[in-house]
Amino acid sequence: MTENTDLKEYWENKPRLLPNVSIDCVIFGFHDNQLKILLLKYKNTEYYALPGGFINLEEDLSDAALRVLEERTGLRDIYLEQFHVFGKTDRRYDETHRQIMAGNGITMKPNHFLMNRFISIGYYALIDLSKAAPKPDGLSDTCDWYDLYKIPSLIFDHNEILQKALETLRLALDEKLVGFNLLPETFTINEIQKLYETVLNEKLVRSNFQRKILSLGILERIEKKMTGAANKAPYLYKFIGE
Amino acid sequence: MTENTDLKEYWENKPRLLPNVSIDCVIFGFHDNQLKILLLKYKNTEYYALPGGFINLEEDLSDAALRVLEERTGLRDIYLEQFHVFGKTDRRYDETHRQIMAGNGITMKPNHFLMNRFISIGYYALIDLSKAAPKPDGLSDTCDWYDLYKIPSLIFDHNEILQKALETLRLALDEKLVGFNLLPETFTINEIQKLYETVLNEKLVRSNFQRKILSLGILERIEKKMTGAANKAPYLYKFIGE
Repeated sequence: MTENTDLKEYWENKPRLLPNVSIDCVIFGFHDNQLKILLLKYKNTEYYALPGGFINLEEDLSDAALRVLEERTGLRDIYLEQFHVFGKTDRRYDETHRQIMAGNGITMKPNHFLMNRFISIGYYALIDLSKAAPKPDGLSDTCDWYDLYKIPSLIFDHNEILQKALETLRLALDEKLVGFNLLPETFTINEIQKLYETVLNEKLVRSNFQRKILSLGILERIEKKMTGAANKAPYLYKFIGE
Repeated sequence: MTENTDLKEYWENKPRLLPNVSIDCVIFGFHDNQLKILLLKYKNTEYYALPGGFINLEEDLSDAALRVLEERTGLRDIYLEQFHVFGKTDRRYDETHRQIMAGNGITMKPNHFLMNRFISIGYYALIDLSKAAPKPDGLSDTCDWYDLYKIPSLIFDHNEILQKALETLRLALDEKLVGFNLLPETFTINEIQKLYETVLNEKLVRSNFQRKILSLGILERIEKKMTGAANKAPYLYKFIGE
């Protein structure tokens, strides 16, 4: 049985899923002072989408989010964080779902569950994209990083979901910084400032930023970075308790 | 037809609801430097619960949250904010639901939708409790404010939901302060500090607090409060743009 026969069988029948509820994952990738976003392109369509999926009837929501992300993109061990539920009644995407399935040679029967209204639970993560190797799933041609400010138009309300995730990321950066695990074991204030500037998409004043980041009480100063000019060398920091 | 016949008819049949999804509302009340929480007590039981309910098949999630809160407690025009989805597979409360319904003379048929697994979407608010007059719905005996640190044991996982809402409130206070509409039109730094101390349940150092709250850029200083001793009178503030 080929992978495609599996897919056909799965989607043409009614899978044992929590009806009317989906999950969408907004994966931000940071590297070299650039912020990118992970998108799938569905086979034989021009449809770009966030990686998303459904919850099995007997599966914890948080497990479902990790499974969906892995099934759609191959990414594992990601620190996913819930951020918002999208629940408007017009989240009903019969025709787009039909075309996505058609692009994979799959026919949706009348009353297929994908014709229902869905509320979607949004999860986001910010990862070091140089350490991630995403790959497309069976329904998709590509799974790639896109410059956040040059993304294609997305299906459904995925542009809105992405926007809300970005707002959440910007507000939560102080609090999630340690968990995201984006910096090397030791780092300079300048390195952490670059991360903030990239996520916030604005230049920050160094003295203000230094005061603010130190006031969070999450950094421990260790020693000066070794360079030729000792008196100009910046201090190195690490996260307290790491 | 009495109100109770309506209730019986509603709950003994299968209402047109989004299956497997519920809403729970955590309403914090602030007044006189006290933080309280709004709880219902179900009729003829010792069951205390957060006000919660379900989403109609053709209803936006945010409208459902406001409707559920109003139906269960009578409270209207509340600034409700989503904070978390509770999605463990063990959120299945057949027996407790059966007893709550029995307390109202309502019999759950086999396969009643309340026997399903539910994921629950949590909403919270912080309101001035002196301006709210909650009243119990048809299923409940009482709808009252309880001291946050002396609440009874709650049904389901409602203690855990309350705890998560409290953590969210404490983290989000800076950002939500204006929207919560808890302070008079003009106020002193001391009044706003009391609000923070009550929510955070800790004493704050006045000079640090003043520096921090002014740095948020949401306050506008207007004039000194009129008192007998002019040089000791505190400044009054208002929110910028209000």
